[in-house]
Amino acid sequence: MQFSYNQLFTFTESVFKSIGCPDDDAILATESLLAADLRGIDSHGVARLIGYVRLWEAGRINPTPCVGVVYETPSTAVVDGDGGLGLVVAPKAMNVALEKARIAGTGWVSVKNSNHFGIAGYHAMKALAHDMIGMAMTNASPLVAPTYSLDRLLGTNPIAVAVPAGEQPDFVADFATTTAANGKLEILQRKQLPAPDGWIQDKNGLGSTNPNELKDGGALLPLGGETGSHKGYCLGSIVDIFSAVLSGANYGPWVPPFVAFLQPPADPVGQGIGHFFGAMRIDAFRPAAEFKAHMDNWISTFRNARAVEGKQVLIPGDPEREMSAHRLLDGIPLLEPVVKDLETVGKKFGLTL
Amino acid sequence: MQFSYNQLFTFTESVFKSIGCPDDDAILATESLLAADLRGIDSHGVARLIGYVRLWEAGRINPTPCVGVVYETPSTAVVDGDGGLGLVVAPKAMNVALEKARIAGTGWVSVKNSNHFGIAGYHAMKALAHDMIGMAMTNASPLVAPTYSLDRLLGTNPIAVAVPAGEQPDFVADFATTTAANGKLEILQRKQLPAPDGWIQDKNGLGSTNPNELKDGGALLPLGGETGSHKGYCLGSIVDIFSAVLSGANYGPWVPPFVAFLQPPADPVGQGIGHFFGAMRIDAFRPAAEFKAHMDNWISTFRNARAVEGKQVLIPGDPEREMSAHRLLDGIPLLEPVVKDLETVGKKFGLTL
Repeated sequence: MQFSYNQLFTFTESVFKSIGCPDDDAILATESLLAADLRGIDSHGVARLIGYVRLWEAGRINPTPCVGVVYETPSTAVVDGDGGLGLVVAPKAMNVALEKARIAGTGWVSVKNSNHFGIAGYHAMKALAHDMIGMAMTNASPLVAPTYSLDRLLGTNPIAVAVPAGEQPDFVADFATTTAANGKLEILQRKQLPAPDGWIQDKNGLGSTNPNELKDGGALLPLGGETGSHKGYCLGSIVDIFSAVLSGANYGPWVPPFVAFLQPPADPVGQGIGHFFGAMRIDAFRPAAEFKAHMDNWISTFRNARAVEGKQVLIPGDPEREMSAHRLLDGIPLLEPVVKDLETVGKKFGLTL
Repeated sequence: MQFSYNQLFTFTESVFKSIGCPDDDAILATESLLAADLRGIDSHGVARLIGYVRLWEAGRINPTPCVGVVYETPSTAVVDGDGGLGLVVAPKAMNVALEKARIAGTGWVSVKNSNHFGIAGYHAMKALAHDMIGMAMTNASPLVAPTYSLDRLLGTNPIAVAVPAGEQPDFVADFATTTAANGKLEILQRKQLPAPDGWIQDKNGLGSTNPNELKDGGALLPLGGETGSHKGYCLGSIVDIFSAVLSGANYGPWVPPFVAFLQPPADPVGQGIGHFFGAMRIDAFRPAAEFKAHMDNWISTFRNARAVEGKQVLIPGDPEREMSAHRLLDGIPLLEPVVKDLETVGKKFGLTL
């Protein structure tokens, strides 16, 4: 079933208002959430709206947070999300990073006491219009086993980096630090299809292709899979440390789960989940026009490389940008269970999709 | 054959003085280079000394560079390496990052007109004594094919992040953004052993286990291997852009080769190779003692996780720290061809190992 962006926007905004978000915050949250649906990352968009509502019902989302800087230097800040939606906290924290960068050249913001923020790429891309490089990362519920571990200690901990170009479209990398994001696994679970090698281990640390293995003590594998997972483990750890040990959020196995039916750990080591944002002004390094001309050359060189039969070398961000243009025009397709969830949410608040 | 650290230090320092390095620079270069031998990254240490000398003979290393800041803001700088040894340029650029961080909270330095800098981890670790997080990355000669590409457009482009802890040893991640670093491939070439799956593609983009495939148009694969190489491609690209497009160094296929028998591209897009360094003062985010107590908890939680039979969960930096302590005490083993190369270098300058 296809829905227009505007239709989903109006519905989602109304839901966020219904749980008590102020008007401005409801718009911020809706923009953050729907960026995932537009860019084709269906697992992180309106499919999760019911999850956010259930967290609110469980008293684990503050709809009227006082988001603010609690510690700072010319180029850094710690932002306290006050238990708000990450979808609202993240754009506000990214704005702090952009403002710091305007004055000090770069801005770096570590965030505590937040919740899931949607897709990292959307927040990193906020820097582009200001001729800045943007970065965003977040920790997440522990689903990933470090190399040799049987315990799940890390989230899928994504990293996004957005770099402005000139005439070429911007470079936007956005990826989980695991072999596969959890959303991709959820799709296989729904379709009851086996997972590729290198995605999952079972409770004994042996490779598995069972997409439901995580329900039986299994874990996702860090990027690099069976021969190089120590590098993905490093990356996921760096995201966890920058997002949570720097800010005072929960880290490692203490990160509270997204699903409301699982309780947060009883012995927290910090507040909420953590994010990390960065902004670097291009002209803090060289004139922006000069940089962009070279980025155009970089991009066209890579795009025009000789490719394997039937393929083309893509620039990070290409598929999501094309998907976004397409879905703005033709609408966003939703699976039947997602539509049912949205209808369930609608009924709670007397809203129709 | 075993050599003491001091013996290799004296010899290497004399070699750098013999090619015209001022005394202080010869010490800096020797410390940078031997950090690799100490930490067990044998491909990047004295095994490469003859390579640096050959580059100097080819007129491609300036032994008396005037390394300096050519562009800056409170938290950023571009450093021009003046064609010097990366082993000398890198510590000087890292010092600029540390100095910026002291005042602005963080410091970010992009470097142009440099050469290979040894191991990234050594430079990142310079931040630790100052209660800062350190970062180092560099681009390198193009040996890596982006996802779907037949052309080699990226180097192994390593990333290092060093994070101070309290009572626990520091966290030091240092990894190539490819499945395997080129040094590991060189070892297989010497031993004439096949490479594991996911390391290499042949000239047609098909997986190969031939360690000599790069001599026949093949390429190293980005981290993630055959199922997730787009993430390694993103990481390698980010390193290339931060190191070279930001600074004005050569990027992508224009990065000059390390080996003197290959000529640099005739149409450079910048100067030399590029690096990127970062320093973040811990107390620009929260009191350092508080952070370190949580890092200790993070580290001991991960180290004590339940592990697969016969293994232990390691913290990034564990193996290299242990190797370093061991080699300082018992000496550094060198392969026969490496010793021969050092003797060849010694003969040029009337030095004995």
